[in-house]
Amino acid sequence: LRRFMVLGAIASIFSVGAVQAQAPSGPLPPEQIIVIRQAVMDLQQGVAGAMKAAVDAKSDVKPLVPGAKGLVSSAKVITSMFPGGTETGHDTKAKPEIWSDWAGFEKAQAAMLAATEKLVPLAEANDTAGFATQFAAVGRTCGGCHREYKMKD
Amino acid sequence: LRRFMVLGAIASIFSVGAVQAQAPSGPLPPEQIIVIRQAVMDLQQGVAGAMKAAVDAKSDVKPLVPGAKGLVSSAKVITSMFPGGTETGHDTKAKPEIWSDWAGFEKAQAAMLAATEKLVPLAEANDTAGFATQFAAVGRTCGGCHREYKMKD
Repeated sequence: LRRFMVLGAIASIFSVGAVQAQAPSGPLPPEQIIVIRQAVMDLQQGVAGAMKAAVDAKSDVKPLVPGAKGLVSSAKVITSMFPGGTETGHDTKAKPEIWSDWAGFEKAQAAMLAATEKLVPLAEANDTAGFATQFAAVGRTCGGCHREYKMKD
Repeated sequence: LRRFMVLGAIASIFSVGAVQAQAPSGPLPPEQIIVIRQAVMDLQQGVAGAMKAAVDAKSDVKPLVPGAKGLVSSAKVITSMFPGGTETGHDTKAKPEIWSDWAGFEKAQAAMLAATEKLVPLAEANDTAGFATQFAAVGRTCGGCHREYKMKD
């Protein structure tokens, strides 16, 4: 029996070595969902930082059309990145209030979506002044949501 | 029996009305993973658009630090957003080659990560010329991956 166990162990070492790189399968682990949503927030902050620079410099806002569209796309998926089971892990700053007040969280998402959607045509029209005003409104929806549903850094 | 069925139907209407809004639970549906990764790509394009504008205008790149960091965060999660089961749906432009050549896809991810990581200190140093050169390198990693693994629009 021992001999077979040893042979088996050797065989599994070789089979591990032979494993081809392949896509993960099965559900996304909760921890990975948290890492993905943190990346989304980082990107949103990146877009917002670039927008703030353009607004401060009163420069063209037409190059911010893709950024505005990205904010809209991400506003649409935000709540879906906080399913039950992702309350803790990977140093998440999500407050328990997200899950205890889901309706309020959805309302905050709707506010962000509505505000970002208005940003797109202003960027397309290169309306720097209008964009600046609406960008401030978008910022208030970020801040409003973070105040209620995100722990302080 | 019919009376009970009618009463049952009425009861279920009321119980649906009384359901509290609550977080989805269970694994993220494949279709939702696709929508999330499309939002991530939209945001990356938004960041890249703002970077291109700054590079073209030879303006300060310091405000692009958060954008560069967002690209890094998102580069780290890209492959995780293409698990088995998300090959089709929601008009995905993902090519089957992602899953048949997973090792190559991971290599493309590693290239993007390495290139974006170099962007951060250049933005922090407000090195507009250095940033411009490295931004071109980042763009080649986007294009390289899209050429192999993304269908034409």
